[in-house]
Amino acid sequence: MSVPRSVAAHRQAVVELLTGATAARASHRLPLLEALGGALAVDVHAPIPLPPFDNSQMDGFAVRSKDIPDAGAELWVAAPVPAGAAPAALRPGFAAPIMTGAMIPEGADAVVPIEKATPDTFPDATARDAVVDLPAVAPGTYVRNRGSDIEEGALALPSGTLLGPAQLGLLAALGMTTVEVRQPLRVLLVTTGDEVVEPGEELTAGKIFDSNGTLLEASMRQAGLAVVRAGISDDDPTSLVTVLRSHTDPADNPVDVIVTTGGVSKGAYEVVRQAMSGHPVDFLPVAMQPGGPQGLGTFNDVPFLGFPGNPVSCLVSFEMFLRPALSEVLGAPAPRPVRNLSLAEPVTSPQGKHQVRRGTVEPDGSVRMEGGPGSHLVHALARSNALVQIPGDVTELDEGAEVEVWML
Amino acid sequence: MSVPRSVAAHRQAVVELLTGATAARASHRLPLLEALGGALAVDVHAPIPLPPFDNSQMDGFAVRSKDIPDAGAELWVAAPVPAGAAPAALRPGFAAPIMTGAMIPEGADAVVPIEKATPDTFPDATARDAVVDLPAVAPGTYVRNRGSDIEEGALALPSGTLLGPAQLGLLAALGMTTVEVRQPLRVLLVTTGDEVVEPGEELTAGKIFDSNGTLLEASMRQAGLAVVRAGISDDDPTSLVTVLRSHTDPADNPVDVIVTTGGVSKGAYEVVRQAMSGHPVDFLPVAMQPGGPQGLGTFNDVPFLGFPGNPVSCLVSFEMFLRPALSEVLGAPAPRPVRNLSLAEPVTSPQGKHQVRRGTVEPDGSVRMEGGPGSHLVHALARSNALVQIPGDVTELDEGAEVEVWML
Repeated sequence: MSVPRSVAAHRQAVVELLTGATAARASHRLPLLEALGGALAVDVHAPIPLPPFDNSQMDGFAVRSKDIPDAGAELWVAAPVPAGAAPAALRPGFAAPIMTGAMIPEGADAVVPIEKATPDTFPDATARDAVVDLPAVAPGTYVRNRGSDIEEGALALPSGTLLGPAQLGLLAALGMTTVEVRQPLRVLLVTTGDEVVEPGEELTAGKIFDSNGTLLEASMRQAGLAVVRAGISDDDPTSLVTVLRSHTDPADNPVDVIVTTGGVSKGAYEVVRQAMSGHPVDFLPVAMQPGGPQGLGTFNDVPFLGFPGNPVSCLVSFEMFLRPALSEVLGAPAPRPVRNLSLAEPVTSPQGKHQVRRGTVEPDGSVRMEGGPGSHLVHALARSNALVQIPGDVTELDEGAEVEVWML
Repeated sequence: MSVPRSVAAHRQAVVELLTGATAARASHRLPLLEALGGALAVDVHAPIPLPPFDNSQMDGFAVRSKDIPDAGAELWVAAPVPAGAAPAALRPGFAAPIMTGAMIPEGADAVVPIEKATPDTFPDATARDAVVDLPAVAPGTYVRNRGSDIEEGALALPSGTLLGPAQLGLLAALGMTTVEVRQPLRVLLVTTGDEVVEPGEELTAGKIFDSNGTLLEASMRQAGLAVVRAGISDDDPTSLVTVLRSHTDPADNPVDVIVTTGGVSKGAYEVVRQAMSGHPVDFLPVAMQPGGPQGLGTFNDVPFLGFPGNPVSCLVSFEMFLRPALSEVLGAPAPRPVRNLSLAEPVTSPQGKHQVRRGTVEPDGSVRMEGGPGSHLVHALARSNALVQIPGDVTELDEGAEVEVWML
């Protein structure tokens, strides 16, 4: 029995385990909206400048600024320039009614907003020989210059950028319809245990329904992973090894990461420990509750994480180790928002173990515990919206004490 | 020209507009993982208790507590109870090796952890007549009682619950494979403007690629909406009305909400204003920059929101009005995390307008502006990870001043 590893040290070990595995991922080209949440696989340079042409920032009159002396001037009204039109050049002494976003006519170099014109409404489009009084204006006023947001050929988005609405909106503005994104990490997820049966099957004495598979697959999907489910492996190490081998053959599209649940503790029937015998995998205690026993290493050169078997332990293992490591190594998902909140009730915690309690952040900003520390309390977990972090050296906290809370 | 409405007042108007529309949504039954992110349509009661049976919290020995006096006792070792087995009743004077999660044998009422046993290892399963020394233990120790997490028939999740990993994990633990969820709100999204062409088409003089459609569809998908795209409507109000009518026929699966972009300002060619003539829709200024001009009302009894035409204005309109209103009315998506951070640079803002700048939160926790206030700066937007809120009565902020930041 080794000295328990700290939460931070184990998280760092997971980061190091994943760093190599994620380096050389393949990419594929997707339509923009299918790439939402993905990571850009290449640098994207702007094929056109943005804006693509000088255009008006206001509804008003496009003018040659030198036509208007400081005291203002009366100008002839030219044909109006709606957005989307390619206007004729502006003749000296004329002012062209122009709409927001419309192209600045050749010769014009500024826009006077309609509110500053006399009259302050646009003349009827059929009117002839209309005139307008305009005040002086500095060159460039209310003109959005071609390329002022991004120049043609400039780096629009670097490789690795996470593609959210704004990034996809930029690619669309650049005229693109598809984008090259990294393929998501593929994770093999295996739940283990003779006591576990698939939801929907018959529940005989001593058996429980598998919730870890659903809980972890949902968490992994939200974190941007592609999940390969291998169902439930019983407590025979041979069958587990067979499953793992079939998904880690270097010649046959091996998964990028393996996650198992259960079978990592010190009992008499620890199937994951037994199956990993002869593979470079450590089984070690982490000074954390729940989720203390952890497995970490490789199986057939594929990074392997062995989570404990209780549902709350699985969720805590994912949130404390795998999810933050993905954030650090891949840049995604975004880390959980962290808040420092006050406890709505006193809490005790075991000496020397970092305790992760489930809680609900109340409308008043305080945090209340959901259920006790037991790692089997999946109903209490389902009522929670936060993980409450109680450091290893803290054994008692009063009502009102400040704690670190991770928002789920 | 009316007095500009405050941001809060307009958000409240959007909440009220959506409240009726979202009341009577249909539901459908989905496999658990397909329901991720959805909202439960019915109360779910537990078909079984959790845990389904009394089980051990530790690897250890299941005992009859009254068999062990305060000084401890030597007991015969019974057949081991692995997880998943239905054990025989425990005879008086015996202790059954039991694994975490395994069923407590009939007659047993407590578990002594293996670490407290002498010897502190399990005897070989083939050993006969083995004995173990155990200390006294209170009844119920290390026993997880049937129904202690949730009783059979109790409310497991109330209608309206958002289904994340923990909630789906609970449903799986209860043996369920499908769940009844509300159908997502269906939003008709129409971008307008003679100047706008679809990405991938030819870009002639005066035209720009539509980025609003992609930006808003991505934002809406992330917020859990189902988006119906009607492409780009030109500046002819008749064609826009035709599009809106075809998606709002009460007899033909009308959409739940309409969102348009562009055509809501005070220029000479405001297609959305023109198309809405005769419908109960207000076009009004909100004291906000960008995103000031807004349309709000109904078209054929379907709630209608008219956003301005620039991409940044669209995103700000969505984040400031529609997304928070969905959070309030539907309970989803979760509100944006709000932080109070210090400015990495001085900022100016127009008097009387709530300004929403785009920014990047630096590793040191300060926030830096991305691009200027211009609402066309979609490249600057794509580099941002936050919206910086500058209230209407603030015109100047020094470097280091504290501002409210919404994390995107």
